[in-house]
Amino acid sequence: MASVKVGIIGLGTVGRGTLDVLRRNATEISRRIGRPLQVRQVVVRNPARLEGLDARDFDVVQDPFALVNDPGIDVVVELIGGIEPARSLVLAALHNGKHVVTANKALLALHGNEIFALAQEKGLVVAFEAAVAGGIPIIKAVREGLAGNRIEWLAGIINGTCNYILTQMRSKGCGFDTALAEAQALGYAEADPTFDIDGIDSAHKLTILGAIAYGVPLEFPAVHVEGIRSLQGIDVTYAEELGYRIKLLGIARRTAQGIEMRVHPTLVPAAHLLANVEGPFNAVLVEGDAVGQTLYHGRGAGAEPTASAVVADLVDVARTLTADPANRVPHLAFQPGQLASVPVLPMASVESAYYLRIQVLDKPGVLAQITRILADEEISIEAMIQKEAPDGAESVPVVLLTQRTLEGRMNRAISALESLPVVNHSIIRLRVETLTGSH
Amino acid sequence: MASVKVGIIGLGTVGRGTLDVLRRNATEISRRIGRPLQVRQVVVRNPARLEGLDARDFDVVQDPFALVNDPGIDVVVELIGGIEPARSLVLAALHNGKHVVTANKALLALHGNEIFALAQEKGLVVAFEAAVAGGIPIIKAVREGLAGNRIEWLAGIINGTCNYILTQMRSKGCGFDTALAEAQALGYAEADPTFDIDGIDSAHKLTILGAIAYGVPLEFPAVHVEGIRSLQGIDVTYAEELGYRIKLLGIARRTAQGIEMRVHPTLVPAAHLLANVEGPFNAVLVEGDAVGQTLYHGRGAGAEPTASAVVADLVDVARTLTADPANRVPHLAFQPGQLASVPVLPMASVESAYYLRIQVLDKPGVLAQITRILADEEISIEAMIQKEAPDGAESVPVVLLTQRTLEGRMNRAISALESLPVVNHSIIRLRVETLTGSH
Repeated sequence: MASVKVGIIGLGTVGRGTLDVLRRNATEISRRIGRPLQVRQVVVRNPARLEGLDARDFDVVQDPFALVNDPGIDVVVELIGGIEPARSLVLAALHNGKHVVTANKALLALHGNEIFALAQEKGLVVAFEAAVAGGIPIIKAVREGLAGNRIEWLAGIINGTCNYILTQMRSKGCGFDTALAEAQALGYAEADPTFDIDGIDSAHKLTILGAIAYGVPLEFPAVHVEGIRSLQGIDVTYAEELGYRIKLLGIARRTAQGIEMRVHPTLVPAAHLLANVEGPFNAVLVEGDAVGQTLYHGRGAGAEPTASAVVADLVDVARTLTADPANRVPHLAFQPGQLASVPVLPMASVESAYYLRIQVLDKPGVLAQITRILADEEISIEAMIQKEAPDGAESVPVVLLTQRTLEGRMNRAISALESLPVVNHSIIRLRVETLTGSH
Repeated sequence: MASVKVGIIGLGTVGRGTLDVLRRNATEISRRIGRPLQVRQVVVRNPARLEGLDARDFDVVQDPFALVNDPGIDVVVELIGGIEPARSLVLAALHNGKHVVTANKALLALHGNEIFALAQEKGLVVAFEAAVAGGIPIIKAVREGLAGNRIEWLAGIINGTCNYILTQMRSKGCGFDTALAEAQALGYAEADPTFDIDGIDSAHKLTILGAIAYGVPLEFPAVHVEGIRSLQGIDVTYAEELGYRIKLLGIARRTAQGIEMRVHPTLVPAAHLLANVEGPFNAVLVEGDAVGQTLYHGRGAGAEPTASAVVADLVDVARTLTADPANRVPHLAFQPGQLASVPVLPMASVESAYYLRIQVLDKPGVLAQITRILADEEISIEAMIQKEAPDGAESVPVVLLTQRTLEGRMNRAISALESLPVVNHSIIRLRVETLTGSH
């Protein structure tokens, strides 16, 4: 049978990993597909990335638009990342009748609706397993493996950089800046770590997971995003004293009012499997109404883990290259005509439990004032620790865990607390999720 | 679009769960498929199982062969379990041009080669996600999600009954019989628990996982099987003292000589994620050459978790009901003409680390005799504990952990040890796996 002709745009970490895996496992892969995958063209900016490859195996091309316009290519693998020219290249490939495999979560979170609509119109596949959680086949699990379920919620550690930093802060007791510098030195964080540490990368991935879980369009702007940049070591320590670990979670949850989509540092019970996902690993926990909880764990980044997902997508695409589009899995899990317009809830309508650290002047009656304000908003206290003031400190920390309440109520309570004369700093507020049952 | 017409044979726990999920999530499921799934016929022996269902929704049929011969049925769901009449029903359904969904691991492990060959010949699908690890989409993960990888090894807790019993033995310090009785009282073990506790059910599932991981035919008779029936509480305790937990693992591993396929109680490092899979949960750890380790965790049994997998299979089948068979995922992950005939290694050729408990007479020179025999077989000792003799006991336990060695060497060493006059009981031998790197 004729080979499937592949063009790869971008030979960075993932592109080079993809070439290496395709070459090393060529025999196994063609035993699976029933025909060989053949990389015909590669677009590479830095020729040094070709080291160790046999240049006779494929053509090296300078212009990515030449590749997406070449009639000799069946499938375009877009691995350059970012919005442009990736968006134009993917759209051009589709216009030219080529399937696309991409690892580009930013592109899909922001322009996926446009891209999937064109793919659908053309009867083509845009495959994107590599866009979320690297080598963990989480897209396939949620979209196909759990297709019998109504997904209640999912919660994922979907950024390995942040998870590495949080693991270091807890295990070494260091601050954010120290942990970030170490992550950068080890290659777990980029020179400009903004997308990772500010939660934007997690929000891109959550946008995609939420869409396939609930059959809604991609709505990145509606996702609430908080990163870990301003997280303080002292809160990691207090969380641990209370039996929790802090993880940056992406959470999508279905409620009677709409869908919650949020990324923020979260206290998770220390014994929970998700709390024990350490270092650069990713994990996604999914609660379906039939299956209950299932967890998926593995490496969320890196050359070959991500290449594993790219190649799995290539195998899927190659098997259905000329299939009737009606027989294919829909891009966003639900048939394109069947997407729902369920609202993404504003953060004030989200329900959560909370961790609060309130720096107060050490005066009689302070706790009474705090508990009174919380009681006025019907917020119940689950646990409280009051710490000794360090020598010479003007304020002492009161650390509280609350029961679940509406974020809008908590916002009002925090405003009222911060206006108390005895409260002399901004209040630190983190969310707490037990990740059991229906929430 | 016309509905997909489903016939369900067997309304036991999983059959009833499947009906309930199909009914409850009908709207979401048809939004995913693009057409409704309609259960037209149900074969049920005990009419009490119909309680709460609207009998107008489908026909209740007595004779399962009438169902598989009915031209009005597109897909047959076989949920009666066991070999006959399940085998004849599945073959008849295929002869009649119907796709099949089954949860029957025993049937596939023993007769899967025949069944898949007929399905292939007829251009039909036999889907079996529910046969392994209940609601965890592990078949899809290994067969499709990791399709770019050479699978190095996989290790699974794939029998919830055994895992529940082992969890109780460790956490409550009770013996096997007590833990089994409790599991039976709670419905986690059947009245006749033989298939579970003797490892046969795990071996059925491992047979399937091994085939899709390595592209080999189903070879149940070649799987080495040891259950947990003779496991003693004292070994659970000693394992814990040494930093391990005992789990019943199904292990498939690729070596230069062939494939290992084995089910046995295994010491796993206590901090390992797999050691922390507790109670009735299942988990499968897969090491691929590109992706590294990925872990899949969830409920491995029960009405709705298993139904979740049955319905996911129905969705897959419904999407590709009339597809060109060349576009479908091959049953055993590799194309039927591409299955390999790699040998399954005899147990003597398997490499493992070991836990040994040797009951010896408390005399001088005993340890020298033991270590000499191990040294003669080039077996290195990793750790040793010698326990005090309980009052009045005639023997004391020596507990050893060894480094990795060939099972054949260990068999010879154990024979030699048991022939020592100071060794007055059969030696307890358990295998130890660190589940890191390439083993």
